[in-house]
Amino acid sequence: MAAPHIDFWFTMGSTYSYLSVSRLADVERSTGMTFRWRPFHLLIILQEMKHIPFADKPTKSAYMWRDIERRAAMYGIPMKLPVPYPARQSVVANLVAIVGMRENWGADFVRAAYRRWFQRGEETGSEPNVSESSRDIGQDPERVLTLANSDDTKAVLTAETDAARELGIFGSPTFIVGRELFWGDDRLADAINWCRFGRVQPG
Amino acid sequence: MAAPHIDFWFTMGSTYSYLSVSRLADVERSTGMTFRWRPFHLLIILQEMKHIPFADKPTKSAYMWRDIERRAAMYGIPMKLPVPYPARQSVVANLVAIVGMRENWGADFVRAAYRRWFQRGEETGSEPNVSESSRDIGQDPERVLTLANSDDTKAVLTAETDAARELGIFGSPTFIVGRELFWGDDRLADAINWCRFGRVQPG
Repeated sequence: MAAPHIDFWFTMGSTYSYLSVSRLADVERSTGMTFRWRPFHLLIILQEMKHIPFADKPTKSAYMWRDIERRAAMYGIPMKLPVPYPARQSVVANLVAIVGMRENWGADFVRAAYRRWFQRGEETGSEPNVSESSRDIGQDPERVLTLANSDDTKAVLTAETDAARELGIFGSPTFIVGRELFWGDDRLADAINWCRFGRVQPG
Repeated sequence: MAAPHIDFWFTMGSTYSYLSVSRLADVERSTGMTFRWRPFHLLIILQEMKHIPFADKPTKSAYMWRDIERRAAMYGIPMKLPVPYPARQSVVANLVAIVGMRENWGADFVRAAYRRWFQRGEETGSEPNVSESSRDIGQDPERVLTLANSDDTKAVLTAETDAARELGIFGSPTFIVGRELFWGDDRLADAINWCRFGRVQPG
């Protein structure tokens, strides 16, 4: 029987995903769970739902940043406000992540890109973030971007986005255990408990 | 110095507020915190923001019910799906709650109305929910509804809604400690930790 795993669906323009991206390695070590990183392009699904979470909602937006800031501090994850948002070219970062997952440096790229976005104010998916994040992890930006912009990679991102839509995903991060969805970094503990015990439970 | 307290802002058409309404009494006993129940009419604020959270979003709506169901089970709170939603007359329930807070039976009414809504499928704010919830807690429905529909009560609900907007509230439940907002039943622990330690922390 395969070891228990949780699918970690995320899109690189998502703010709250920074928390999950930053803590999953520790969570894997402390729980023994394995996460499969599944980049997809959430923006397409949100546009279909006519739902853009924060862009035109200043009050909710202000709350979001404060909430992320408080919870980042709780997890010991550095961040420096303001963080540029929305990330207009996040599709490029998602394409690079797709390439990286195939070549086994995807999670490292995602962490590097989020660090630059949330700690240095370099918008994700744009330059210099994409090239410098590639260099940070020892990848040649020119090769990476050529692969990212290939029809093949675009087809994979579209297929993964279709799979996400089919699963009922409408936000990032979303954790999936079997057919059970858990939306939000704040539902990670629920997903782990579901995987272990078939139910959510306190603590 | 006043004992530490947390303002509990809620609106009676809110689904996730069922979890908070159902567990606050236990939380008060186990933590020593005091909660001030503050009913307001969220719908006005959402309409101003052009943001209705679930009504026209079937995928997100399906997730919401499953998420609430899982978390209600975690807290041992009964619920029976489907629950009628949205509650078209929730303003009436909010007005009764305002009267009840003044007369010191408000929390009991809110709990009774939520039980009927989430356990018996009686839409909150409509009949028979409003009258039967009043009877459940020993109040005369006719007197309660006359007071609820008075200009005075409507003015108080409007003033409380204005105060909520001014505080930056855009959802229910919202917990406030000083000027710090915590949105969602899943942020109750954060609010308590903020009140105790001035920061959020795990567990």
